[in-house]
Amino acid sequence: MFIDTLKERILKEGKCFEGGVLKVDRFINHQMDPYLMKQISIEFIRRFADLSVNKIVTVEASGIAPAVMLGYQMELPVVFVKKQQPSTMSDMYVAHSRSFTKQCDYNMVISKEFLTSDDHVLFIDDFLACGSAGKGIVDLCRQAGATIEGMGFIIEKEFQMGRHVLEAAGVKRIESLAIIESLDNGQIKFK
Amino acid sequence: MFIDTLKERILKEGKCFEGGVLKVDRFINHQMDPYLMKQISIEFIRRFADLSVNKIVTVEASGIAPAVMLGYQMELPVVFVKKQQPSTMSDMYVAHSRSFTKQCDYNMVISKEFLTSDDHVLFIDDFLACGSAGKGIVDLCRQAGATIEGMGFIIEKEFQMGRHVLEAAGVKRIESLAIIESLDNGQIKFK
Repeated sequence: MFIDTLKERILKEGKCFEGGVLKVDRFINHQMDPYLMKQISIEFIRRFADLSVNKIVTVEASGIAPAVMLGYQMELPVVFVKKQQPSTMSDMYVAHSRSFTKQCDYNMVISKEFLTSDDHVLFIDDFLACGSAGKGIVDLCRQAGATIEGMGFIIEKEFQMGRHVLEAAGVKRIESLAIIESLDNGQIKFK
Repeated sequence: MFIDTLKERILKEGKCFEGGVLKVDRFINHQMDPYLMKQISIEFIRRFADLSVNKIVTVEASGIAPAVMLGYQMELPVVFVKKQQPSTMSDMYVAHSRSFTKQCDYNMVISKEFLTSDDHVLFIDDFLACGSAGKGIVDLCRQAGATIEGMGFIIEKEFQMGRHVLEAAGVKRIESLAIIESLDNGQIKFK
């Protein structure tokens, strides 16, 4: 099973850091394994098989690889939300967010051209931690009148409670491929 | 021919801004067309068919989509250089760079683990403008003792002279899929 392969890889190549940080930069968020990204995208298609979606949305930078592989397989456009307003962007929606690993606030920006009330969005990201980026997406979609059909994450750190934050914000479908129960004492423990 | 399709798309959907800025955020650097990214990756494979490469390198964020599609087609790992040092990264190479569109300085950061003297690198990015990011890659590869086999760009703004900058820095193979001679008076003129 693919999920076992993914978990094995996280156990073997992931590194734990103080404060609940898991580093997977050998295959997800610095060096990337494109074949793994393809497998991840196929698993997302299976998980969300019952949904009707017309657009994949992600956040720069680590979400782009799985999102673009998924968009390719599903033949859908992919929009990546920016963390900095480009000089050429004027008509946009803005949401406030906070990075868990970087411990800093930032704005999430999407052009009004690429998120409208016609959109049925599948949001894809590498990590679900505190749910801050996902909550920003809920905010952007609310402003645009777009519908969030689901949110898919490669890795969920369950103990950081992001799932509850997103459910409270009204997200009805959340799928995480590998769910981590704890990183206590530097040990990766899956649910 | 694919190149004609790409040029047509740039003409139809690209927008010119003051100071030589070309916005292609409908299909490359905000909303992305994954099928176009696949076609772009195939064209890069053709252009660099004679090279022996073991790693694709790009810079976050807009380079990631074409790079990961290329890595997938070529079955190679992809590393994206970061523009901000992650809290969990300690052993790395750093190069200084400047964004043309954002008019700001930034550091390019890559972990020493993912760039070594064994590497034969193909660098992929969305734009070749002043060549600043490419020059940063030359600097990072020099520090690591890695070999740059080639650099591939989706769009080159020839009038911003980045090709000369990269050639002067020792890059022997540069391929740009669509070369723009000028953006004067808001008109996109291909070479």
